[in-house]
Amino acid sequence: QDLGKGLILPLLSQVLSGCGVYDGTEIHEASAILVHLSRGGAQVRMFAPDVAQMHVIDHGKGQPAEGESRNVLSESARIARGSISDLGHLDVSNHDAVIFPGGFGAAKNLSTFAVDGKDCEVNKDVERVLMDFHKAGKPIGLCCISPVLAARVLGKVEVTVGHEEEEGGKWPYAGTVQAIRALGAKHCVKDTHVDQKNKVVTAPAFMCDTQLHLIFDGIGAMVRDVLRLSGK
Amino acid sequence: QDLGKGLILPLLSQVLSGCGVYDGTEIHEASAILVHLSRGGAQVRMFAPDVAQMHVIDHGKGQPAEGESRNVLSESARIARGSISDLGHLDVSNHDAVIFPGGFGAAKNLSTFAVDGKDCEVNKDVERVLMDFHKAGKPIGLCCISPVLAARVLGKVEVTVGHEEEEGGKWPYAGTVQAIRALGAKHCVKDTHVDQKNKVVTAPAFMCDTQLHLIFDGIGAMVRDVLRLSGK
Repeated sequence: QDLGKGLILPLLSQVLSGCGVYDGTEIHEASAILVHLSRGGAQVRMFAPDVAQMHVIDHGKGQPAEGESRNVLSESARIARGSISDLGHLDVSNHDAVIFPGGFGAAKNLSTFAVDGKDCEVNKDVERVLMDFHKAGKPIGLCCISPVLAARVLGKVEVTVGHEEEEGGKWPYAGTVQAIRALGAKHCVKDTHVDQKNKVVTAPAFMCDTQLHLIFDGIGAMVRDVLRLSGK
Repeated sequence: QDLGKGLILPLLSQVLSGCGVYDGTEIHEASAILVHLSRGGAQVRMFAPDVAQMHVIDHGKGQPAEGESRNVLSESARIARGSISDLGHLDVSNHDAVIFPGGFGAAKNLSTFAVDGKDCEVNKDVERVLMDFHKAGKPIGLCCISPVLAARVLGKVEVTVGHEEEEGGKWPYAGTVQAIRALGAKHCVKDTHVDQKNKVVTAPAFMCDTQLHLIFDGIGAMVRDVLRLSGK
């Protein structure tokens, strides 16, 4: 019997990709992850790569802001309230799990998925972190579009990005499923999917056009599965 | 008996001031407000003034980004996922209540409180909106530093910004209480305070250095009181 279980706070890491759904991290997903981790008694450290964003989207106009450039780490720091480190410093040995929220930043700044689809490249530190946590048998949580990162780096994992048909606009990014399969991963139509063997937990989050509190609750289920698999 | 009660969704407005605690809206407060409004069955429209930010803070470095300028409406659109309007278009007659999250943006972009304290000026549309909702007897919710806006514009209201002493860093902005009083408002030390007469609901949120899920829950209490006072 592990008498220490529950006494030592789990230390989680969250990897951000900017600040704003169209060129960075989806803000409400990142915030929901933090609220659920806090309620679950976890401590959290935030990380982001110290690289330029692919581009800047004026979220008011819905189009690129020409001539502007922003740094992924500096913008991610807005979500982290200034407490964030370069992803290059994320060491698997100090953390019990890693979570990647979604937003186009995962497909634009953490990888080239938004441009190259199944042929995408993945940021070297993102690749290293995913491989390190997988090798160490520590859980990896991903939501929204981020499961493509696990599919690209780890290959034969089970993930969900939601439903496989658009269903009249309820699942506007349903086409992502084909790319998931092309990357060699198995897609499972689920609210939250746990790949027990690989300790990969995924949830659709904003891949579904639904009410925010339902997205919040779905992320909560993902976070609780990640914490459970961390064994703390 | 109002048989229509509960059948018509309340329509709430949230007023943002940018995107990021140090020069705009506190992201987790805005997100929590939206989650609780969604769970409460409310529809929400988002607004922000179409003005330049006072300045841009590099949240990674914790210092001003010299030579950079950003627009409050465009940056607020990051939290609103692009669905946001100029605050000049917020009409009290179409909305059941208004909520202001905190973040330094309330004290830098919606007012000059961060620079001028009790002598601050308030953005003209913010002033109009607060006076219109107050006059119409519709609830006004504010959290974190935003209660200073109600104190400045409405004067004799009861608000809370938390505790009145720093208590070893737990309440780092306790000094705000003196400004609240200098503006003619009454400060109440509460988790959430409801000024029944003026229908002003306030909560400390990130004025307290505590766990995120407790801040989330405190904002939930504020949102529920605002919805209750809206009578829908």
